[in-house]
Amino acid sequence: MTKSRTRNRSHSAPFHGKQKNSGNDSWLWGHHAVTAALQNPDRILKKLVMSRNAAARMDGLTLQYEDMAPEAIDRLLPAGAVHQGVAASFEPLAPLAIEDIIDGPAQRVVVLDQITDPHNLGAIFRSASAFGFSAIILQTRNTPPITGIVAKSAAGAIETVKECRVVNVSRTLQHLADGGFHTVGLSGDGDTPIVKAVANANRLAIILGAEGAGLRHGVANACAELAHIPIAAEMESLNVSNAAAIAFYEAARTAPKIGPASH
Amino acid sequence: MTKSRTRNRSHSAPFHGKQKNSGNDSWLWGHHAVTAALQNPDRILKKLVMSRNAAARMDGLTLQYEDMAPEAIDRLLPAGAVHQGVAASFEPLAPLAIEDIIDGPAQRVVVLDQITDPHNLGAIFRSASAFGFSAIILQTRNTPPITGIVAKSAAGAIETVKECRVVNVSRTLQHLADGGFHTVGLSGDGDTPIVKAVANANRLAIILGAEGAGLRHGVANACAELAHIPIAAEMESLNVSNAAAIAFYEAARTAPKIGPASH
Repeated sequence: MTKSRTRNRSHSAPFHGKQKNSGNDSWLWGHHAVTAALQNPDRILKKLVMSRNAAARMDGLTLQYEDMAPEAIDRLLPAGAVHQGVAASFEPLAPLAIEDIIDGPAQRVVVLDQITDPHNLGAIFRSASAFGFSAIILQTRNTPPITGIVAKSAAGAIETVKECRVVNVSRTLQHLADGGFHTVGLSGDGDTPIVKAVANANRLAIILGAEGAGLRHGVANACAELAHIPIAAEMESLNVSNAAAIAFYEAARTAPKIGPASH
Repeated sequence: MTKSRTRNRSHSAPFHGKQKNSGNDSWLWGHHAVTAALQNPDRILKKLVMSRNAAARMDGLTLQYEDMAPEAIDRLLPAGAVHQGVAASFEPLAPLAIEDIIDGPAQRVVVLDQITDPHNLGAIFRSASAFGFSAIILQTRNTPPITGIVAKSAAGAIETVKECRVVNVSRTLQHLADGGFHTVGLSGDGDTPIVKAVANANRLAIILGAEGAGLRHGVANACAELAHIPIAAEMESLNVSNAAAIAFYEAARTAPKIGPASH
């Protein structure tokens, strides 16, 4: 592998993964994101590179890796990537189908309508994982692949929260509703305060639109309920990942208690 | 002004503000951030530049501005700044002193201990404004100035939420407590769930530490109470601006109702 890499390198840009493969199998970097990915049994490792210092911190790691200077790792990754001396590439994760969600045990899912900022996307994965949302449903088009930047912001959460891609968001909301999900769209114009909209739903889907534009008209119409987070009149809206965190938190705080009945 | 600018330009880099002035009077950019700043009566405008298209969108603006091509505005600003054809520089805002907070009408304030990421800082300003927090207290050192990047993420909130700089965060927490503020530090190790810690405080200060490192030991010790946001065991923590948003939301949701008594 090292050999073929070296040969490729003399012919093309150092990071040729992007041209050849789908975004899903591009590099992850940083101690937290890479460690979480290596612990994910669904991941198939293609290549692991580490600086000497980073390798010394990886207690008990038995995987083969290529020893690489930090500056060489820099050249594998997007400019400015804070990699802490460790990067890895993987085969693409098998995608989750919408039927797997509807027919499976998932109780809480997120639907993102055209959210493109990778830092926001990563923070939403992170909050989803923190508050028990097991999948994030994204449109096939108009949403970037889950890249290393998303993974870094997600701090490991892309390993626990499944990604599902759908062609048509509005139709997917109908399928979710048919599967027993209460579909709550977050919108400044929503009638219901978020705490009422999410309380006591057994199966719950929270739908978030793009920063600024919000939910598209057809998507908003396809939600069972539109909910708002009560905010001061001076501010028009919250950062989308902040709004998501509050909605997920409220859903977790007000969830029906599951477990052995106490009576 | 245009003349002296042109003269300077031939001798030095196009953006010489950074070397000459404190960060506080550097450029703001983007329609939302600049409009909010122009509407702030405390702001003293030094220079406003707009593209022809951006100027056409600025309905009813009577201020003098310099007509500038988008590419020329690019050169005034940090690389990648999404300016939408409008940028402005201002005199530094007069800083708020900690005594102004303690002796003033402020009911809710935020204290940030060494949070440096400008996007997180901006999102925290935005959520603070949305949930009625009137000031953000930052350390004089170890925290970047409120730059254009922070302002852009704050979506206008740096105009409504006052900035206060202090030398010693722990001592400031003592002053706030003496002034009747309930000081709640956010920490994964905190004993109290956030909803209990913030409920019913008349005067409330929420303290947030750096992502990863969390609150410094001395700062944590100086808080009246340490509170956690209940999250799943798989995730170690939330993004700091997401955690802040949830804490502010809970404080607003559970605030003692102010206004004419109903009985």
